[in-house]
Amino acid sequence: MIKAGIIGGAGYTAGELLRILLRHPDVSLDFVYSTSQAGSKVSAIHQDLLGETALKFSGSINPDVDVVFLCLGHGNSIEFLKNNPFSKHTKIIDLSTDYRMHSQDHSFVYGLPEFKKEEIKKAQFIANPGCFATAISLAVLPLAGEKLLKDELHINAVTGATGAGTSLSATSHFTWRDNNFSAYKEFEHQHLNEIGQSIQMLQPNFDSEVNFIPNRGNFSRGIFATTYTNFDGNLEDAKALYDTYYKDAAFTFVIEEEVHLKQVVNTNKCLINLQKYKSKLLITSAIDNLLKGASGQAVQNMNLMFGFPEDQGLRLKASYF
Amino acid sequence: MIKAGIIGGAGYTAGELLRILLRHPDVSLDFVYSTSQAGSKVSAIHQDLLGETALKFSGSINPDVDVVFLCLGHGNSIEFLKNNPFSKHTKIIDLSTDYRMHSQDHSFVYGLPEFKKEEIKKAQFIANPGCFATAISLAVLPLAGEKLLKDELHINAVTGATGAGTSLSATSHFTWRDNNFSAYKEFEHQHLNEIGQSIQMLQPNFDSEVNFIPNRGNFSRGIFATTYTNFDGNLEDAKALYDTYYKDAAFTFVIEEEVHLKQVVNTNKCLINLQKYKSKLLITSAIDNLLKGASGQAVQNMNLMFGFPEDQGLRLKASYF
Amino acid sequence: MIKAGIIGGAGYTAGELLRILLRHPDVSLDFVYSTSQAGSKVSAIHQDLLGETALKFSGSINPDVDVVFLCLGHGNSIEFLKNNPFSKHTKIIDLSTDYRMHSQDHSFVYGLPEFKKEEIKKAQFIANPGCFATAISLAVLPLAGEKLLKDELHINAVTGATGAGTSLSATSHFTWRDNNFSAYKEFEHQHLNEIGQSIQMLQPNFDSEVNFIPNRGNFSRGIFATTYTNFDGNLEDAKALYDTYYKDAAFTFVIEEEVHLKQVVNTNKCLINLQKYKSKLLITSAIDNLLKGASGQAVQNMNLMFGFPEDQGLRLKASYF
Amino acid sequence: MIKAGIIGGAGYTAGELLRILLRHPDVSLDFVYSTSQAGSKVSAIHQDLLGETALKFSGSINPDVDVVFLCLGHGNSIEFLKNNPFSKHTKIIDLSTDYRMHSQDHSFVYGLPEFKKEEIKKAQFIANPGCFATAISLAVLPLAGEKLLKDELHINAVTGATGAGTSLSATSHFTWRDNNFSAYKEFEHQHLNEIGQSIQMLQPNFDSEVNFIPNRGNFSRGIFATTYTNFDGNLEDAKALYDTYYKDAAFTFVIEEEVHLKQVVNTNKCLINLQKYKSKLLITSAIDNLLKGASGQAVQNMNLMFGFPEDQGLRLKASYF
Repeated sequence: MIKAGIIGGAGYTAGELLRILLRHPDVSLDFVYSTSQAGSKVSAIHQDLLGETALKFSGSINPDVDVVFLCLGHGNSIEFLKNNPFSKHTKIIDLSTDYRMHSQDHSFVYGLPEFKKEEIKKAQFIANPGCFATAISLAVLPLAGEKLLKDELHINAVTGATGAGTSLSATSHFTWRDNNFSAYKEFEHQHLNEIGQSIQMLQPNFDSEVNFIPNRGNFSRGIFATTYTNFDGNLEDAKALYDTYYKDAAFTFVIEEEVHLKQVVNTNKCLINLQKYKSKLLITSAIDNLLKGASGQAVQNMNLMFGFPEDQGLRLKASYF
Repeated sequence: MIKAGIIGGAGYTAGELLRILLRHPDVSLDFVYSTSQAGSKVSAIHQDLLGETALKFSGSINPDVDVVFLCLGHGNSIEFLKNNPFSKHTKIIDLSTDYRMHSQDHSFVYGLPEFKKEEIKKAQFIANPGCFATAISLAVLPLAGEKLLKDELHINAVTGATGAGTSLSATSHFTWRDNNFSAYKEFEHQHLNEIGQSIQMLQPNFDSEVNFIPNRGNFSRGIFATTYTNFDGNLEDAKALYDTYYKDAAFTFVIEEEVHLKQVVNTNKCLINLQKYKSKLLITSAIDNLLKGASGQAVQNMNLMFGFPEDQGLRLKASYF
Repeated sequence: MIKAGIIGGAGYTAGELLRILLRHPDVSLDFVYSTSQAGSKVSAIHQDLLGETALKFSGSINPDVDVVFLCLGHGNSIEFLKNNPFSKHTKIIDLSTDYRMHSQDHSFVYGLPEFKKEEIKKAQFIANPGCFATAISLAVLPLAGEKLLKDELHINAVTGATGAGTSLSATSHFTWRDNNFSAYKEFEHQHLNEIGQSIQMLQPNFDSEVNFIPNRGNFSRGIFATTYTNFDGNLEDAKALYDTYYKDAAFTFVIEEEVHLKQVVNTNKCLINLQKYKSKLLITSAIDNLLKGASGQAVQNMNLMFGFPEDQGLRLKASYF
Repeated sequence: MIKAGIIGGAGYTAGELLRILLRHPDVSLDFVYSTSQAGSKVSAIHQDLLGETALKFSGSINPDVDVVFLCLGHGNSIEFLKNNPFSKHTKIIDLSTDYRMHSQDHSFVYGLPEFKKEEIKKAQFIANPGCFATAISLAVLPLAGEKLLKDELHINAVTGATGAGTSLSATSHFTWRDNNFSAYKEFEHQHLNEIGQSIQMLQPNFDSEVNFIPNRGNFSRGIFATTYTNFDGNLEDAKALYDTYYKDAAFTFVIEEEVHLKQVVNTNKCLINLQKYKSKLLITSAIDNLLKGASGQAVQNMNLMFGFPEDQGLRLKASYF
C-alpha cells in the first residue's frame, strides 16, 4: 500500500484521479492539496463522492508520500516544485505541459506507456502526455516506429467540453455549446510539439507537415481523431504493423469494427481502426480525454513505476450509453 | 412604420427581439442601447446576424421612438426609467419583473394577451410576463376564469439553460448541465407572485396552495409544464372551457395530441393538452421561454398596442428537429 | 468464485450486468444466452468491451450455474422458467416485472435491499425492482415505515432514453429526443403497483392517492424524482427518520446538498435530499436507471444472497461530467 | 401567387418545405402528396404546425401546379416522373440525387444559386444540391473559379442526425448518438461526385484528390466543414477572391469572425471564414443541412425561377441558442 498525494484538487483531472485512487487497492490517498478549497470536503466539489468519503481538501502537503500527482494549470508545475520540495524517494507525475518536452533541465520521462514502458518503469518523474497528443500519437507511432511516415499527416480531432477545464468561458456555456460545433487553434495546437517530438524520436528523418484541425464537440468527454497519410503498403501490412506495436499494450486495441467515441468514454482505453483508400491509410482513434488522456494514464504510469499490475484500479466500467 | 428602441441589447431576450424586429414589416429599429457594447456591431454578439445587418449598439438613446423595449436585469427598469425619460407618446414594454405586480405606483398593464387583450390594446405601458408565469397561467386561467379552481395546484415545470440568462455560472457550464437534471427554488419561485395575482383577479376566493417545482433541463430553449388539480367536471367539460377561453387566441392552441417541447421551440406558440384521471384534471403546456415567454410575447403586445395584426412578424418557422 | 449466467444478453440491462460481472472478483461468467446473437462476440453488441473479452453469446444454457439473471422482456420470464428449469441450488434474479407483485403462485422476494435486506440474504429467487419504483420507493419508504404517510403523494420523475430499451421508436430517435421534453403514462405508470405494494406492507392503513407524472428527458441515463406530501414534523424530524432508515444502506445516502442527476450516473447509488416548505416535505432522489434501477441492484442482491460484501464489484467510478 | 405541390410529405425536407411555403407570401400550397399519410393532417406528422394549418396530406396530385418539389428517397424521382407527368409549364425542383450529375438524358440544372444563378433563373427543372455538397462547394468554388486549385483538398465535415433521414437506425437512436461522435463513408461519400463535377466545370485541369471525411455529430441540424489546400497567395488575396465571388450572394457571407454551427442553424445562410497557415488556405464553412442544404435552397431556387426576391420567405429567425 503506497501513500499518494494530489496537488490541485478541484479540477476535472484531479477529480478523476480521486475517483480512481479512492478505489485503487494498492493506494492510500494521503492528501488532496487545494489552497482554494482547504478544509472543505472533496465531495463538496466532486459531488458524485457524496456518501462515499469524508476526505477533506488539505491546506498542507506531506512531502514524504510515495507518489504525488500535480494537477496544476499549465506552466505552474515548475514553480510549484521549486517552492515545495518532496522527499528523495517521492515519485512525481505531472499532468501539465511543463515537462513534456525533453530538455537538459529536467529528468522527466514522457509517460506514454505504449511508447516508453520500460523507461517509465524505472522513472522517478513522469510528464503525463496531453489528451490530443495521446490520441494522435497512438495513431501514428506504429508507422514512425518503422520509419514509414513518408508524407504529410492530415489530422482532425474533436474534444469534449471537459477538455477546456472547469473555468467558465463563452464557449463552455451550455447555451453556446449545446448542439454546436466549431474548430479552434487550427494547425497551431500546443500538443503538436509533443506529437512531433515523439515522431522525431522514432523517425528522425521525418520532415513533412503535421496538419491538425482540433474541434470543439458538444459532448462532455472524449476525443475522436481521424488521421490519414500516404502509405505504401496495403491494409494487411498496416494491421500487422499496428498489431505488433500494440501486442503488449494494456489499454490500446486495434479493432476491426468502426471506432466511435462512446466505446471508450469513462474507460482508460484507446481503440484504433485502420482503413486503406487508394494511397491513403486512415487511422481512427478514440480515447476518454480525462482518463487515457489524463488521469487514467497517470495512474497507469504509477502502476508501472511501482510494479503494480498495469491495469490495477483501471478496469473501469464504460458509460457506453 | 414605427420606430423602436431596445434598452440592454446583449442578452438573450434582446437578441430575440432584434431577430424579430429586424424582420418585422411595420418596424424600423432605431437603436439598440448597450453601455457595455456601444459602438460594436450587434452581429458581434448575436452572430447569427452576421452578413444580415450592419447595425451597431448605441451608447445613446432616442427618447422620441414610438416604442421602447426594456431588456434590463430584474430590478433595474424602475431606476432606468427615472433616469431616462421618454416622450409622452412613447410606449414602453418592460421585460423585467419590475412592474408585473399591480400597484398604485405605476400604470403598467400585465401583458398576457390571452388574459388582457383589450387592456393591452389601450395601454401605453406593458409589464411583459415571466416565462414560467406564461406557461403556467395559460394552463390555469381558463379554470380561474370560471371560478372552478377548488383545491391545491400541483405544478412541475422544466426550463432550458437560456432561462438563467447569459451569465456564466456553475449550473450553466456545459459539462455540468449536459445530460443532467435538477430542481431549484422549489415552492418559492418568484413567478408564483404573478401567477397568484392573475388567479386572484379572476377567482378572488381561491385560497389553496399553488405548489410549484421548477427544474433545470439539459436543453437550451423552452418550458414544459404539467399542472394538475381536482376538477369536478369531465374531460369534455374541461375541453369546452379551454376551447372557449382560447377561441380568439393568436398563439395558444388546445390540442388533442400529446404536447412535447419541440412542437413550440423557436415559435411564439403555447400548446395545451388536457387529460382527466379520476378526480384530477391534468393540463400540459409548453412554450419557448424566449419567445412566448419573453421577446415574442413582447412583440405580440406591441402589435396589439399599435393595431398591427397580432401575429405580424411572429409567424416563425419552428426548429422542430 | 460462483458461476453466473445471463439470459437475454443484447439489451441495456444485460450489457450493464456483463460489464459488472466481468470485473466482479467473486464471479465467473459462465454464459450469456441470446438466441438472436448466439455465436457472435458479446463485444459486437456491447462495443465498449472490444479488446477486453473474447466471450461469445451462447445458444445454450448451463442449468447448473450458481446464479442466473433474467434480462428478458416484461412478461417473458414466467414462460421462460417453465421451459428452462434450473438446478435446485441455482439462485434466480429476474429483472422483469413478472414476479414483483406478491402472490401465492411464486416465492420471489422483492429485491430492494434497503427494504428487505434480511429476506434477500435468505432468498433463492429475487424479483428485481423497477427503475422508477426504486427511485420513488427509496424516497417514501422511511415515512411509510413509521406510518407517517397521511395524505396524497405528488411525484414527478424524469428518465433517460435507456429507460425505454434498445428498440427503435419515434420517441427514441435522436432528432426527436434531442433538446426535447415530454410526459407520458401520467398517473398510470405500471411501477405504481410496486410502489403501492411496498407502502402497504409498511403502512397498511395508507389509502390516499399516489399521483405520479413520469417524463422523458433528453439524456441517456438516470432518474431524477421529486416527491412531496404533507408531513407533520419539521425538517429535523424528517432527517432523523431518513438517517435512521438508511443507516446501514450500502448505496443510499441522505445528503445536505441539492441532488442532481449526474451525482449518481454510472454508479449504484441513490442520493436523497429533504426539504420542508410549510406543511410539505419535499424528497428529491436520483439513481442511475440501469444500475441502482436495474443491473447494479441485481448484483447488489446477488452479493447479499451469496454473502459477498454488499458493494463487491459495485464501487463504480461515476461519469460525473 | 403561384400554386405549389410537394411530393413525399412526411420526411424532414418536406417538413421544412411545408414550414417555409405556408408562410411564403407568393405561394399557395396546393397539395402535399403522401401515399402513406393520405387523408391525415400534415400537423399530425409535423407537429409544430398544430393550431396553424388544417392542411391534409393528399393521395392525389394536381399536375397543373406552377411548381412541384420532389422530396422522394434518392433513386425514386426518375421513376416517379415517368409515372406522373406534369403540365408543360410546371417547374420541377428535385431534392434527390437523381438529376444532379449532368447527362444527355435530362435537362435539370444544378441548383446552387451562388454557382449557376443565371441558368437557374431560366430553368424549368432543378436538381437541388446535396447538403455536404453545398457546404463544401461553397468553400472551394471561388478557388476553382479562378483555376487556383493546385493540389489535394483535405475536407472534414460533420453533420447532424437529420442528415440521415427520419428512418430509425442504430446510429440514429438517442442512446447511441447522445454525446457520441463517429466517422463514416470516409473518402467515398456520394456527394464527392457533385463536388467534383462542379470543380471540373470551373477548372477542368484539376486532377488532384479530394479527400473527404464525413462525421456523425451529436446534434440534430447543421453541417460544419473545414477544408484546406495549398494556396499560393496570401490571406488578403484569398479574401478578395471570395468577396468577389460572393458579392451578389443572397445567403453566403464571408466573415472575419470564427464560424460556428449555431450561427446558421434554422437559417438559409452559409457562413465562410478564411485563414492562412504557411502554405495552406483553410476555409471553414457552415450551413443548416435542411435549409441551405435542402429545402431552403429549393425555395431559393424557386424564387429565382419565378422572379421573386431571392430571399422571399427565407428571412428566417435563427435558433442561435
